Amino acid sequence: MSDTVSPLAPKKYEKMPAIDGVRIATAEAGIKYRNRTDLLLMAFDKGTEVAGVFTRSKCPSAPVDLCRANLGGGKAGVLVVNSGNANAFTGMKGKATTAATAKAASAAAGCKESEVFLASTGVIGEPLDPAKFTHLLAGMAKSAEPGRWSEAGKAIMTTDTYPKYATQKVLVGDAEVTINGIAKGAGMIAPDMATMLSFIATDAPIAAPVLQDMLSKGTARSFNAVTVDSDTSTSDTLMLFATGKAKGAPRITDPKDPRLAGFRRALNKILKNLALQVVRDGEGARKQIEINVTGAKSAKSARRIALSIANSPLVKTAVAGEDANWGRVVMAVGKAGEPADRDRLSIWFGDNRLAHNGERDPGYSEERTSAYMKRDEIAIRADLGIGRGKATVWTCDLTKEYVAINGDYRS
Amino acid sequence: MSDTVSPLAPKKYEKMPAIDGVRIATAEAGIKYRNRTDLLLMAFDKGTEVAGVFTRSKCPSAPVDLCRANLGGGKAGVLVVNSGNANAFTGMKGKATTAATAKAASAAAGCKESEVFLASTGVIGEPLDPAKFTHLLAGMAKSAEPGRWSEAGKAIMTTDTYPKYATQKVLVGDAEVTINGIAKGAGMIAPDMATMLSFIATDAPIAAPVLQDMLSKGTARSFNAVTVDSDTSTSDTLMLFATGKAKGAPRITDPKDPRLAGFRRALNKILKNLALQVVRDGEGARKQIEINVTGAKSAKSARRIALSIANSPLVKTAVAGEDANWGRVVMAVGKAGEPADRDRLSIWFGDNRLAHNGERDPGYSEERTSAYMKRDEIAIRADLGIGRGKATVWTCDLTKEYVAINGDYRS
Repeated sequence: MSDTVSPLAPKKYEKMPAIDGVRIATAEAGIKYRNRTDLLLMAFDKGTEVAGVFTRSKCPSAPVDLCRANLGGGKAGVLVVNSGNANAFTGMKGKATTAATAKAASAAAGCKESEVFLASTGVIGEPLDPAKFTHLLAGMAKSAEPGRWSEAGKAIMTTDTYPKYATQKVLVGDAEVTINGIAKGAGMIAPDMATMLSFIATDAPIAAPVLQDMLSKGTARSFNAVTVDSDTSTSDTLMLFATGKAKGAPRITDPKDPRLAGFRRALNKILKNLALQVVRDGEGARKQIEINVTGAKSAKSARRIALSIANSPLVKTAVAGEDANWGRVVMAVGKAGEPADRDRLSIWFGDNRLAHNGERDPGYSEERTSAYMKRDEIAIRADLGIGRGKATVWTCDLTKEYVAINGDYRS
Repeated sequence: MSDTVSPLAPKKYEKMPAIDGVRIATAEAGIKYRNRTDLLLMAFDKGTEVAGVFTRSKCPSAPVDLCRANLGGGKAGVLVVNSGNANAFTGMKGKATTAATAKAASAAAGCKESEVFLASTGVIGEPLDPAKFTHLLAGMAKSAEPGRWSEAGKAIMTTDTYPKYATQKVLVGDAEVTINGIAKGAGMIAPDMATMLSFIATDAPIAAPVLQDMLSKGTARSFNAVTVDSDTSTSDTLMLFATGKAKGAPRITDPKDPRLAGFRRALNKILKNLALQVVRDGEGARKQIEINVTGAKSAKSARRIALSIANSPLVKTAVAGEDANWGRVVMAVGKAGEPADRDRLSIWFGDNRLAHNGERDPGYSEERTSAYMKRDEIAIRADLGIGRGKATVWTCDLTKEYVAINGDYRS
C-alpha cells in the first residue's frame, strides 16, 4: 500500500454486498507489513464449486502448484491469501509451507485438505514461515462474516495504491444471483495468465467445469489483455467460487445453457472492470492506455502487435510525457515481427489520425493532439490495412515513479 | 548530445588513425540541432567494397530501403549520414528525399548513384527536407580528409552522451591493415539487427561477399546481443567498407581464407567494443549489465531467456536500485516461455550464488552481494541445469533518467 493514491483510482467505491455461502476474515499477521492486514481467509459453505486460471510462468510459486493440484476436485472449502511474501522459488521449504498451511486451514474450516486453496503475493525467494500465521486461521474461520469484502480487498494489497472491487447482480433463470470480485496488481503484470491475484465469488449454483469454461474464456479479453510492465508474475492466480446458495436458482451444468448468458456477461464485466483497475493502479501509473489494433492479418497477429505497442518503454514514456509520438508506435508495429506493410499503416491517438498510408497525415493538428494527450485515458489505434484481425489491450504509462518504486522494493 | 556524460563513458578516447581510401567531412546543416554538426560524408576511393546488416523492423526507414537496394552491387562510393531526423515513415516524401540525396551525393563524390549509401537517425515521421543539406555535399566531398574520424563520431550522435570509436591494427598476410569503427545508439536499442548506426572501414582488400559473411556472423555476438529498451529501431544500420588500399595486403575472396583469421578477430573486437559502448550509453544508464545464461536446452533457448532477463523492467530497475533482487531473475526466466525447471535453477550476481536448486542459497551473504551491486558493471548468471545451451547479452539499468529523456524527446 502506498501513501499516494493513483490519480486513476475510482472516484468512489462500490458497496460490496454479502454472498450467501461465503464468510470472510482478515488479520494482521505481520508477515512483512506492519499496522495493516496481510492475511485473508475466505470460508465457503459445503458444496462450493471452483475454477481457476494461473500464471504460465515456468517458475510458478508453491501456492500455484497447490491450487493446480486441488482444482481437479472441483470443490472449495477455504481460501487463504497472504501478502508480503510470494512463497515463490522457495524450494522444499515452500512446499512444506503450503502443506502446513493447507493442514491448518482445513482444520480451521472443517473441510478436506484437497479443498484448500492458497495464494501468496509479495517478494520472491524469501522462505515464508507458516508459523507466522497458521495459528491465526482457526480464530479467523470462527469469526468470519459474510459482509467483509471491503476488508478482503485491502488485506491482499502489496504496492497497490487502492483496493479493487467489482460487483454485479444478474438473473439466472428467475433468481437473482450476486457476483463479487476483488483483485490486487500493481507490478509484475503481464498478460500470460491471470497476471495478479483475483478472487471472485457468486451464490449461483454453477458446476465447476462450467465455471472453468467461463473463467478461461473471460480471461482472454480481461486479465490476459492487460500489461503494466511485460513482467509475468510467478504467482498469478484468478479463482471463481460458486456457493450455489442463491434461493431458487437452477443449477447449471452445461456451459451452453442459455440461462447462463446474463451471468456470463456480468462475469465478463467484473473481469474487465477488475483488470482495468489493475492497469489504472500500475506502479507509478498516471494514465490508462487502450491499444486497439485493427486490419491485421489475424486476431493473434493483432494481439501480438498490440502487446508490442503496450510493452514498448518508448511508447509508454511518450504517453507519460503527454507527447503524441506516433513514430514510436510505428517502431513498435515494426518490431513486432508480424505481417505489416509500412505504406498501409494508419495511426490514431483518440480521434486524431496522425499517420495514414505510410506517412504523416496532412490533416494532423499538433495542437488538438497535444490537448488530447493531457487526458487521463489515452486510446491508441493502429490499423494495419492488410486484413481483418483485431485486438484490444490495456496498459499504463511508464513514469519515474515506476522506477522509484521498483528500484527500492525489496530492500 | 546530452550535457551530462554517462558515468560509464570511456575514461579516454582511442586515437583514431586514418584509413587509406576513406575521406571524411562533417557539417552543421541545422536539420534539427543547433550549434553542432549533424551531417557526415564519408567518401571512398574507387573500388571500395561494402557489406551491411539492417533492422528487421517491418517499418524500415527510407535510407534502409535504399541501402538494401544498393548493397547488391557490392561497391561503395560515398556514405551520407544525418542526425536529427530518421526519414522513417515518411512515405513517398521519404523516398524522394533519399533519391535527391543519392543524386547530390553521387555528383559530389563522382560515383554512381547505386554506390551511394545513406543513413538517418532521429525523430520518426517528420519529413526530411533534402534541401536542408544536399547543397552542402559537394563542398564536403571536396574538403573531406582522411583524419577526421573523431568528427565523424560526433556528427551522428542523437541522445548519446559520448561519441563511440574503436580501432584495431592487424595483419592480413604480411601486411598491416587498419579497421576503424564509429557508432551511435542511446535509445530504441534492441537486438533485432544492428540496433543503431555503426560504420566501420578498413583499408584491407576484402571482397564484398566476404565482408558480408564476417559482418553477419560478427553481429550475432555483438550488436545483436545488446538491448537498452527492447525497442527495435526502424533505422538500424551497420556497414563495413573495405577500400583495399593497404600496401601489400593480399585480396581476400574466400571467407574461409586462413589469412583472414586475425582480421575476423579484430573486427569482432571492434563490433563488441562498439556494441558495449552503445549499452553503456543507453539512455539514463548508470550500470552495464552482462547476462549469462548457461545450462539451457539450446543456444537459441538460452538467448531467449537472456533477453527476457535483459528486457525485464523489474530486473533493470532492481539493478538501478543496487538491489540484488534475484527473485525478479526467477520471474524473467519463468516468463520466457522456454524450457526451464524451477527446481534446477541457480542464479549468481557476480560470484555470489544467491539461488541454487530452486531456492535461496544457504550460503548467501546479503552484505557481500549488496557491496557487489554498487559496482558499475553487474554480471547476472542464470544456470538452467537442464542442457548445454548458453548465451550472453548485455544491457543497462533502467533509471528515472530514461523516463525523463523519453518523456520529453520529440516536443
